[in-house]
Amino acid sequence: MLKIVVSRPPLLSSIRRVFFCSSALKWVGGVSFVQGASRGIGLEFVRQLLEGNENGHVIATCRNPSGATGLHDLKSKFLERLRILPLDITKENTIEAAATSVREHYGSLNLLINASGILSIPDVLEPERTLSKLQKTSMLLAYEVNAIGPILVIKHMWPLLKAGGGSGTKREFALVASLSARVGSIGDNSLGGWHSYRASKAALNQLTKTISVEFARRKDPIICILLHPGTVDTDLSRPFQRNVPEGKLFTKEFSVQKLLNIIDNAKSSDNGKFFAWDGQEIPW
Amino acid sequence: MLKIVVSRPPLLSSIRRVFFCSSALKWVGGVSFVQGASRGIGLEFVRQLLEGNENGHVIATCRNPSGATGLHDLKSKFLERLRILPLDITKENTIEAAATSVREHYGSLNLLINASGILSIPDVLEPERTLSKLQKTSMLLAYEVNAIGPILVIKHMWPLLKAGGGSGTKREFALVASLSARVGSIGDNSLGGWHSYRASKAALNQLTKTISVEFARRKDPIICILLHPGTVDTDLSRPFQRNVPEGKLFTKEFSVQKLLNIIDNAKSSDNGKFFAWDGQEIPW
Ligand SMILES: NC(=O)c1ccc[n+]([C@@H]2O[C@H](COP(=O)([O-])OP(=O)(O)OC[C@H]3O[C@@H](n4cnc5c(N)ncnc54)[C@H](OP(=O)(O)O)[C@@H]3O)[C@@H](O)[C@H]2O)c1
Ligand SMILES: NC(=O)c1ccc[n+]([C@@H]2O[C@H](COP(=O)([O-])OP(=O)(O)OC[C@H]3O[C@@H](n4cnc5c(N)ncnc54)[C@H](OP(=O)(O)O)[C@@H]3O)[C@@H](O)[C@H]2O)c1
Repeated sequence: MLKIVVSRPPLLSSIRRVFFCSSALKWVGGVSFVQGASRGIGLEFVRQLLEGNENGHVIATCRNPSGATGLHDLKSKFLERLRILPLDITKENTIEAAATSVREHYGSLNLLINASGILSIPDVLEPERTLSKLQKTSMLLAYEVNAIGPILVIKHMWPLLKAGGGSGTKREFALVASLSARVGSIGDNSLGGWHSYRASKAALNQLTKTISVEFARRKDPIICILLHPGTVDTDLSRPFQRNVPEGKLFTKEFSVQKLLNIIDNAKSSDNGKFFAWDGQEIPW
Repeated sequence: MLKIVVSRPPLLSSIRRVFFCSSALKWVGGVSFVQGASRGIGLEFVRQLLEGNENGHVIATCRNPSGATGLHDLKSKFLERLRILPLDITKENTIEAAATSVREHYGSLNLLINASGILSIPDVLEPERTLSKLQKTSMLLAYEVNAIGPILVIKHMWPLLKAGGGSGTKREFALVASLSARVGSIGDNSLGGWHSYRASKAALNQLTKTISVEFARRKDPIICILLHPGTVDTDLSRPFQRNVPEGKLFTKEFSVQKLLNIIDNAKSSDNGKFFAWDGQEIPW
């Protein structure tokens, strides 16, 4: 494995300095943060980011690191290029702790991927098939995990993304990509149902748009995009794969390759936009 | 005051029957339900509905009926054509109790207006000016009141709206109008800020679209629309009126007149759409 030639500031006092000294932030290959990385699309992002760029560093977060076997397999292969941190998106103190750890070890970020998300949890959250089944508890849970959580992560990583910008990468800005879903599109909603999930993703879209406006106004070197991965063969889609037309159920490998293609080719004019896996814009 | 010639079914057993006997539901002039009617736009809806249709009946709900002086003034003028009921949109049991009361007294509904909403509450909810001020508690509160609440009201009034349809009115369907806001539009969001409020209204839009699809699929005689009232001189807008351009701050009277015009002229093809006070469609 290639050894990275960067002077990692060892002390907090020197870390503070890096905020005023952007050259110290040049992690060759860039530093990526993948939130929701225990399995599914998030885990695949970690794998492809590590394999696709021999200089890149990845921080992967999940609720329960000790049980995240997929991440441990990657750790044994990629060693210090992968760092696993605990983060539960419903507990803001764990997000803050992760931000502190990233600041101490890297001082900056170039890419943030919010990959966590919930659609159904047996006996807890059932995607609604009719209005008469709507439950306030389900609505609040989906909102907390799918809409509020990713935005709180961006809130706490913001200074690190600002410090990082595009340094060490081919981009001129740091990029935040949050996994939304086509069913979160209001304009595209012709089937109904899945009220809690749809509403939470529409809200995530609105929140992302809102912060993209602020980043642009402040001239921060950060752009935010929303991604629809297609229907991907993961735990999340498994109970609902029956009606997926032939050839429309993607592997994680295929979907993430397509999404990384969008991320790698993002332009600053993409800030605040919502893209499907094939690069097509999705209406709000 | 005109006495209405309707046979009001006095017993619960006969009420049950009316669900199978739509002629008994013909309340001449129609039965309207205005939720969030203590003040502001909701109260003005109640006034104009009562004044504009000498046969119409109105149920007005609010959290604290005893303190709703505006409603009591109307009650003393319109007597049994106005019924005031308690309803706190954050307490589903009060929504259910209101639905039971309407079923017992009227058996059906022809119009439901969701007028409640929160933007700021001193020391509790502050419209955010930057991402760094985002608080989970504010996000959840705005979502509970502005997005979940109105949809729970529709959930419980659904059988009554279905029973009522357009009977007794000039429309061929019952109508549900929920007060959204232009700042809930993702496509129209070029200013940023107000994260909690914007996200809650975008979610309300998505939820309304979702249920409009179900009503259409079931061929229920109900359509749902979303309304932006303009910037209206009420308690809600008061702290933010400073930057409103001359002539763009509407009176409640003007705004509600315009919104009732949209409601009165709604077509079934308007189901699931989002209109500004002037009848223009707003992008999602
Ligand atoms: N798969 C699809 O077809 C599809 C389609 C459209 C959009 N999406 C979106 O794509 C994203 C990834 O979905 P996926 O298919 O990979 O789902 P998945 O296989 O079910 O994985 C979901 C991930 O979210 C994490 N997560 C759930 N709650 C969390 C919390 N409170 N804190 C931190 N992490 C949490 C899970 O961690 P644990 O292991 O700890 O539970 C897991 O890593 C989601 O946002 C989803 O909505 C997926
Ligand atoms: N005014 C504007 O410029 C403007 C612009 C765009 C959209 N809107 C929307 O129009 C609607 C009406 O706004 P407004 O200007 O009339 O506001 P307002 O004068 O502040 O009145 C808000 C109403 O909502 C009620 N409410 C708040 N929380 C409630 C709860 N938990 N349960 C039941 N009722 C509750 C209030 O009742 P209490 O008296 O009990 O507090 C009050 O009747 C809102 O949905 C608002 O978002 C207004």
